[in-house]
Formats: sequence, C-alpha cells, structure tokens
Amino acid sequence: MKIKSYKISVGTNGFCDIKDLTPEVREKIDHSGIREGQATVFVVGSTAGLTTVEYEPGLVRDLQELFEKIAPQGKDYHHEKTWHDGNGFSHVRASLLKPSLTIPVMDGQMTLGTWQQIILIDFDNTARNREIVLQVMGE
Amino acid sequence: MKIKSYKISVGTNGFCDIKDLTPEVREKIDHSGIREGQATVFVVGSTAGLTTVEYEPGLVRDLQELFEKIAPQGKDYHHEKTWHDGNGFSHVRASLLKPSLTIPVMDGQMTLGTWQQIILIDFDNTARNREIVLQVMGE
Amino acid sequence: MKIKSYKISVGTNGFCDIKDLTPEVREKIDHSGIREGQATVFVVGSTAGLTTVEYEPGLVRDLQELFEKIAPQGKDYHHEKTWHDGNGFSHVRASLLKPSLTIPVMDGQMTLGTWQQIILIDFDNTARNREIVLQVMGE
Repeated sequence: MKIKSYKISVGTNGFCDIKDLTPEVREKIDHSGIREGQATVFVVGSTAGLTTVEYEPGLVRDLQELFEKIAPQGKDYHHEKTWHDGNGFSHVRASLLKPSLTIPVMDGQMTLGTWQQIILIDFDNTARNREIVLQVMGE
Repeated sequence: MKIKSYKISVGTNGFCDIKDLTPEVREKIDHSGIREGQATVFVVGSTAGLTTVEYEPGLVRDLQELFEKIAPQGKDYHHEKTWHDGNGFSHVRASLLKPSLTIPVMDGQMTLGTWQQIILIDFDNTARNREIVLQVMGE
Repeated sequence: MKIKSYKISVGTNGFCDIKDLTPEVREKIDHSGIREGQATVFVVGSTAGLTTVEYEPGLVRDLQELFEKIAPQGKDYHHEKTWHDGNGFSHVRASLLKPSLTIPVMDGQMTLGTWQQIILIDFDNTARNREIVLQVMGE
C-alpha cells in the first residue's frame, strides 16, 4: 500500500471557466504505478470546485447558467462588506460544489464512464492560476 | 492495510428515481472483513449522483422537487444542440450532486446515523441499469 | 500505512449555524503523526453537511441566504406528513451538500488554501450536539 501525491497547475479565465482535468489525472495515475485504490482530487482555495460532467461545449454553458441561476453575480453579497473584492458569488458557488472528488481506481484505470470527465470550475471573478492536488492511494 | 473493490448493479426508472444502497453496501463491508477504514461509493456515468438522506417516501418526493426546481426538465439546455437526447437537466443535476461519497468505517460499521441512508439518484430521462463501485480500504 | 480515527463533538444552534472545524481537525492530524495521506471528515446524521469556505461573517450570512433560497424553510415539505417535525428543509439541504469531505495531507499539513476553512453547517431546526468523525489515513 502506498501513496503518491502530485500537484497540477491549471490556468483559468475565472467567471465559471471549466477545465477538463482528466488527461492529466490519468497520466499521473499511470505514473504512480498504482493499479487498485483511489484517486482524490482537491482544488486549493475557496472560489473553485471539482466535479464530473460529459465535457462538451453545450453542457459547459448549461453548468455556467445553472450556477448563475443558483448564485447570481449581480446579487448583493455580505462578503462584499468584508473584502470589497466583488466575488461573493464565487465563494458561495464554490462552497456548494465543494473542493474534493474521490474516484476509485481498478486495474490501473479510474472507474469513470466513457462520457464522464473530471472538471475544475473556477468561480472567481478574475483569471487565476489554480493548484490542484492529486493523491493516489493503493497498491 | 488492504483494499477490496466491489461492483453493485441497480436498476432504476430514471427521472430522479432514488434507490437505497445501504443494505448492499453494508453487506459488502461485512464481506471485506475490514473493521477500520473507509468506504468510497462511486456511480459510473454522468447522469446520476450519490448522497445520504433519511430514506422515507416524503423526503424522496422532496428531493425530487428540489432538483426539479434547481434544474427544471422543461428548460432549453445547450446540451440538446450537441446530442438531441433530451437529458440536459439530468447532466447538470448530476454534476451538482457529484458521483462519489466517502464514509468512515469503525468497528466494522459505517458511521452513518440511524436515519441516514446512502442513496443513488438517477437523474437520466430513461430507465437505466446503473453500475456502482464500492471500495473498502483499511484493516 | 496506518489509520487514526477521531470523534469531534460540536454544539450548534441549528438553523444553518456554521462552525469552523479547522483548528480541531488540524490538531488531531498533528496528533496522528501522519505526514502524507488524507483526512476524511464526516458528519453523522441527515440534517447537516460539510464543506469549505473563507470563514468570515459576511460569507457565513451569504451561505445561509443561499440555502434559504435553494430550499426555503416556509415551503410545504412532504417529509412533514411522515414525521411532523418541521425540518423538511433541513433534510433536503443536507442531502444536497452531503456529509463528507476529503482533504489531502502533505508534509503533515492539510492542503487547504490560506483563506479556506472546513465548516460544519447544521441545517436542523433546533440546537444540536453534533458528532463528527475524522479519519486520517496515510504514513
């Protein structure tokens, strides 16, 4: 039983920019040599989240519209009174989606469906360079 | 320290059909012989999700109404332009809820509350045979 | 490779009371002696959830308003017909947010951002004494 930790850097445009992390996660799982276990993906920071989706342009827009409906950018957020950085909507969206995702690994492969990709959603109101931690645990 | 992986098949009616996975997960944890560790449950595919709930008919309906409100079936989804399969609402609901759930195991038992069951929600717009991966890790 | 399990008790006022669990989780990870691995936090029960946020009073209120909008307290919930305990809104909010959170540990530290704290949200409609399970796994 072993643990391998990796860091992945991803540049985003913020504002609900959605990036497919699957190829890089897959490559690092291959590198780990772990055949049976799990991969935990975690995004550092409080204005981004991780989930899975069928990564195609239509659903990318649908997800962006979903989060705009749930927590609109134009609403008055109390966070504004604390920091005046205009990203209250980014924070509450990120808290709702959460920063981590765990995926089983069997026979050296994540158990994702064929049309199921791992995505980062950057909810912040500016371009960011995001740090993602990937931990592969198993044997 | 060891890992035991299992597959669970569940037939659903789609359209927010909610299934209680607790008995089968519990049985497989017993089978694993692992007394201290964690169980990770993961649903393969991009139109279903996992969480916990007090599994009773009222809350099953309440959750169905919650997701209908968050991402209504009748809305126009951009996903439709890509695939024409009418299940944009299924995808965005699934991405919001996420496909995995991790539960600690102590003294051979999951640390669930008495009225806390593990559920699969199938958001797709058709009956499905769902594959769930359960991974028990520990000693 | 080892596992250390801890229980954390937290008193809350219910009604979306939000508590910062970070200092106590950090202290127990230190105690575990695990330097590389992961921490899984899990709240027992079906009316509370866990996530991360920049823990400041403005965002605490913003999150409370977000959940009030998603699943208002005043709506008629079918759960009411089963139990008459008036907390249908608590249950559906908790199912949406989910009870678990997994955070990587590297060099003995969780990989949280500087302004990213672990929070418990108690959605119930009464004060509660909450039990949280923390499991640290690694080496």
